[in-house]
Amino acid sequence: MKIAVDAMGGDYAPGVVVEGLTIALADFPDYDFVLVGHQAKLAFYLEKYGIADHPRVQVVHAETVCEMSEPSAISLRAKRNSSITVCAKLLKEKQVDAMVTPGHTGATVAATKVLVRTLPGVDRPALAASLPSQEGRFILMDAGANPDCTPVNLAQFAIMGEIYAQYLFKLDRPRVGLLSVGGEDIKGCELTKESFKLMDQLPINFVGNVEADVVFEGASDVLISDGFAGNVMLKGIEGLAKSTMFWLKRVLTKNALRLVGAMLAKNAFRELKAFGDADDVGGAPLLGINGICIIGHGSSSPKAVRNAIRVAGECVTFGLNDRIIAKINETHSTTAELEKKLAAEKQ
Amino acid sequence: MKIAVDAMGGDYAPGVVVEGLTIALADFPDYDFVLVGHQAKLAFYLEKYGIADHPRVQVVHAETVCEMSEPSAISLRAKRNSSITVCAKLLKEKQVDAMVTPGHTGATVAATKVLVRTLPGVDRPALAASLPSQEGRFILMDAGANPDCTPVNLAQFAIMGEIYAQYLFKLDRPRVGLLSVGGEDIKGCELTKESFKLMDQLPINFVGNVEADVVFEGASDVLISDGFAGNVMLKGIEGLAKSTMFWLKRVLTKNALRLVGAMLAKNAFRELKAFGDADDVGGAPLLGINGICIIGHGSSSPKAVRNAIRVAGECVTFGLNDRIIAKINETHSTTAELEKKLAAEKQ
Repeated sequence: MKIAVDAMGGDYAPGVVVEGLTIALADFPDYDFVLVGHQAKLAFYLEKYGIADHPRVQVVHAETVCEMSEPSAISLRAKRNSSITVCAKLLKEKQVDAMVTPGHTGATVAATKVLVRTLPGVDRPALAASLPSQEGRFILMDAGANPDCTPVNLAQFAIMGEIYAQYLFKLDRPRVGLLSVGGEDIKGCELTKESFKLMDQLPINFVGNVEADVVFEGASDVLISDGFAGNVMLKGIEGLAKSTMFWLKRVLTKNALRLVGAMLAKNAFRELKAFGDADDVGGAPLLGINGICIIGHGSSSPKAVRNAIRVAGECVTFGLNDRIIAKINETHSTTAELEKKLAAEKQ
Repeated sequence: MKIAVDAMGGDYAPGVVVEGLTIALADFPDYDFVLVGHQAKLAFYLEKYGIADHPRVQVVHAETVCEMSEPSAISLRAKRNSSITVCAKLLKEKQVDAMVTPGHTGATVAATKVLVRTLPGVDRPALAASLPSQEGRFILMDAGANPDCTPVNLAQFAIMGEIYAQYLFKLDRPRVGLLSVGGEDIKGCELTKESFKLMDQLPINFVGNVEADVVFEGASDVLISDGFAGNVMLKGIEGLAKSTMFWLKRVLTKNALRLVGAMLAKNAFRELKAFGDADDVGGAPLLGINGICIIGHGSSSPKAVRNAIRVAGECVTFGLNDRIIAKINETHSTTAELEKKLAAEKQ
């Protein structure tokens, strides 16, 4: 098992990434690593964490970095030698089994789409974000890789999401829902109405339309959406979570009594904040590309980097991509036929 | 000024609605009311709040109710005599200047679309929800009336939203943003990319693409979206807010120390909860129909009902619809020309 790790990605690179890698080296003695980044900038941290000449770490130089603030559209063209692009090349050439980056989501999606390409039979890759629900977590996908989607794209996301949930939640038949604006079958936009008919025919545990609010109460294990609505939902709840902490601080610091109360309960607020963290999952996989790629949050902790590496390795061992290819293949005729039928009905 | 009030709408009807009306009668001595609902069921509450024979309240009987749990699709056809339909009829026939319902959003949109129709020049009405930002509020529209939209629809929503924000926030030039998946101009889906070009030409204070997270930090006063993504965002943050309260309770009741802390700060949590309430605004107007229609939350309090009535009256006095007609008219040639140009470019 060989995993490429983008050392330059994220807000606290490369220190946090090297620290995360150091934990992974101890925890996963069977994994080999290719650490991709600016060699001169990495040297200090490799020394600091005592892995400068580690037998299982090979350092590959990457001249540039995709800064988190950069537009993703220019990254691939302008930055052929960025750490993300170098990782994607290693994945493409099968020099590694998987790649992990806590870096620029847009740039990673662009680089892997172009260089690594999709799995046989898969039209579009999708970003599978993991979000907290009241009693566990659920997967939202596509969380932003494809702003415009077709019903077949969504049907394929459903298959990929089911298989990823089988791995992540250890469920045989995870419940797959379609993000929509009403619970009833006939509700939704043109895209979801057509997608509903396709998904209803697939050999998955399809639970129908799911509204964005009930999913936090555990209405489905996987929530399927186009990348526009999915990203709006993801960003919307991220923004609200951040503002809730802002409001909470404001109301709790209004007077001395409240301040004392807040201090007594301060561990509770720490725990509340942690609900939003994806540290245990480490990041969101980009499902459907011809390789395993885990994209961590820009603000990933060392623990998150370590867990993204764990998830990457486990996805390889689980045979995630082989399972996706097999099920996409198995359902191909159903999907194609139904698509033709729906197109004919429309005319 | 005459306002129709749907007495049967919402989770606590008709008691809460009659109580809200009673406050409104005292606060707005110039308003006359038509209370629409089941006469026998209303009698008790009219008696209870001492407005059984109020000179400014006329009761109009409606045999049925659209229950909140009912699919909206069947409401209009099956329920010709529901309180919502009767209100819409009164608005259509200009027997009232405005209507207020804390009832079924989908059924209200359907009934007013069909019966009251849109303003001259307006293609589609849009639901304008008001949401909290860190230092104030912002308007999200369309919050769910139109799951599928065209760029011209979104451009018209921008104009209507600007005028509503001029009234609601007392701003001369409210900042109008386009909900998208990236801040840069070129990011988004097909719909938003085309809409961006149209909105950029309008005589409004257009601030470009706005992501769903920064809007809570006050990135724009009005956030324009199709009704699918808008509803996903609205429901997503409603769901998260509810679950945050669930998680907060769970972490605060874990041990005695935290419980004491929580008790000392309990007013802070009450305040936090109130951030989400739209009680001051009373509800969301359906902008673009040929009349004023305010749709309150199903769980509206008497204060919310009273404020929905206030907003309805103020929108009439402000001349909201005349201003919308004028600006839609003024920008019609710009929009139509640009639309033609964009269509030609596509071919």
